[in-house]
Amino acid sequence: MAVPDRQKLAINQATTMKQWSLQEAIEGYAARDIRGISVWRNKLAECGVTEAATILSDHGMDVTGLCRGGLFPANDDAGRQAALDDNRRAVDEAAVIGAECLVMVCGGLPDGSKDMIDARKQVADGLAEMLPYAIDAGVPVAIEPLHPMTAADRACVNTLEHALDLCDTLGEGTGVAVDCYHVWWDPKLEQQIARAGDRILGFHVCDWLVPTIDLVWDRGMMGDGVIDIPRIRGWVEAAGYRGYNEVEIFSEHNWWKLDPVKVIDTCIERYDQFV
Amino acid sequence: MAVPDRQKLAINQATTMKQWSLQEAIEGYAARDIRGISVWRNKLAECGVTEAATILSDHGMDVTGLCRGGLFPANDDAGRQAALDDNRRAVDEAAVIGAECLVMVCGGLPDGSKDMIDARKQVADGLAEMLPYAIDAGVPVAIEPLHPMTAADRACVNTLEHALDLCDTLGEGTGVAVDCYHVWWDPKLEQQIARAGDRILGFHVCDWLVPTIDLVWDRGMMGDGVIDIPRIRGWVEAAGYRGYNEVEIFSEHNWWKLDPVKVIDTCIERYDQFV
Repeated sequence: MAVPDRQKLAINQATTMKQWSLQEAIEGYAARDIRGISVWRNKLAECGVTEAATILSDHGMDVTGLCRGGLFPANDDAGRQAALDDNRRAVDEAAVIGAECLVMVCGGLPDGSKDMIDARKQVADGLAEMLPYAIDAGVPVAIEPLHPMTAADRACVNTLEHALDLCDTLGEGTGVAVDCYHVWWDPKLEQQIARAGDRILGFHVCDWLVPTIDLVWDRGMMGDGVIDIPRIRGWVEAAGYRGYNEVEIFSEHNWWKLDPVKVIDTCIERYDQFV
Repeated sequence: MAVPDRQKLAINQATTMKQWSLQEAIEGYAARDIRGISVWRNKLAECGVTEAATILSDHGMDVTGLCRGGLFPANDDAGRQAALDDNRRAVDEAAVIGAECLVMVCGGLPDGSKDMIDARKQVADGLAEMLPYAIDAGVPVAIEPLHPMTAADRACVNTLEHALDLCDTLGEGTGVAVDCYHVWWDPKLEQQIARAGDRILGFHVCDWLVPTIDLVWDRGMMGDGVIDIPRIRGWVEAAGYRGYNEVEIFSEHNWWKLDPVKVIDTCIERYDQFV
């Protein structure tokens, strides 16, 4: 693979979640000539949505995604309605900041449930119900398959194939976010990325550490693990994707403890060789 | 689902790995009228293979499987040859103790490699090369898909679909081990179990804990987690499986620290309701 386009490096704000507010992240990334950022809703709320839109615009930032909608399954109608209401608010926020997509972490099993088939039906139903609102707002919905180890408590959409099956059913306004960390292990990955085609709304990178000591908060910096990211990027680009390569690292034990300027500089250093 | 047949309860020796030798496990399980055991090679070596065969026979034990063959991928021909030699020894041992199958944990990425496609090719090649020896010995080869979180360092066969694709290619003498812990999350599980049909050589049960604090050594006792085991057992039985329901729990933090008699009694107590 040719080295990736430096102009296509984006940072997901989660990468400096513990160190920087949204304003600090925008300023910190822009200071290194990074022009793509994915925004988290808790940070957006702290900043204020309108104020954030202004700061993003002032720094010439593309917003690669808003994290996150989803979390549909619930034990009762009130819970399901609350999830739908929250998803509509997320769409509104995404529209105000001009996010290229709303990233959907679909949700796992409701408390006390063991019924994955029902949880998946609730996800499909929830997506169908919120989709017209997202289409009206001009916000593409990016279904993100999460690693199977998160199936119980975070997302019951765990393969790109399943996410694309949902897109096939839902149609216009939907696509997928391909995060190497979640899908690198999948023997059908190349085939399913080709199937995705122009429905790839985001491409996220980080690395799988060996050993991994936490199921959620122990992601690695590109180059520190075993994922052949350039190969996967090649498949994504062959499918027609021309968007940002977005670094998203949750790292309770390492990167979240470090100077965020050093974290961002490391992302840049690693980008040419390992993305 | 009807409650499972008590006569079909087997225990994988790993469940009392830290407490009991093979002889102690055989005696301990038999004392509770459990007549199926899956044996681990390190414990078998301690006991002596011929001696173990005698003890197993004396206690009327069915050997549901020998754990484990596999671990094929290596960085060089010497490493691959060593793996093949070891797999042939595993076949010999399985034949002596009358194991119903040799369980294959296929292996992950060789040290320093990021090439999952090559690792999977090495697994397919290794299985093809050792298979005639297993057929001659009358030992069925059970390919066990392991959870995707183990793809890097334990097994690059991570879905039942992939395992069955290998069986399709390899043909006679091969089948699959279906372990709920590894496959419960899979949206294609029901479909792939039906596809497996009479190729299901083993059915393993334990539970997925929320939260899970270790990627390998934190499995739960049936009923303590979120897996709907009876539903999966129903699919397996609908596919024609009539073998043992084998409890296999790796639990560094809990069950391996307890009195093994209490562990086995708990397996029995939980069996009717949660298997």
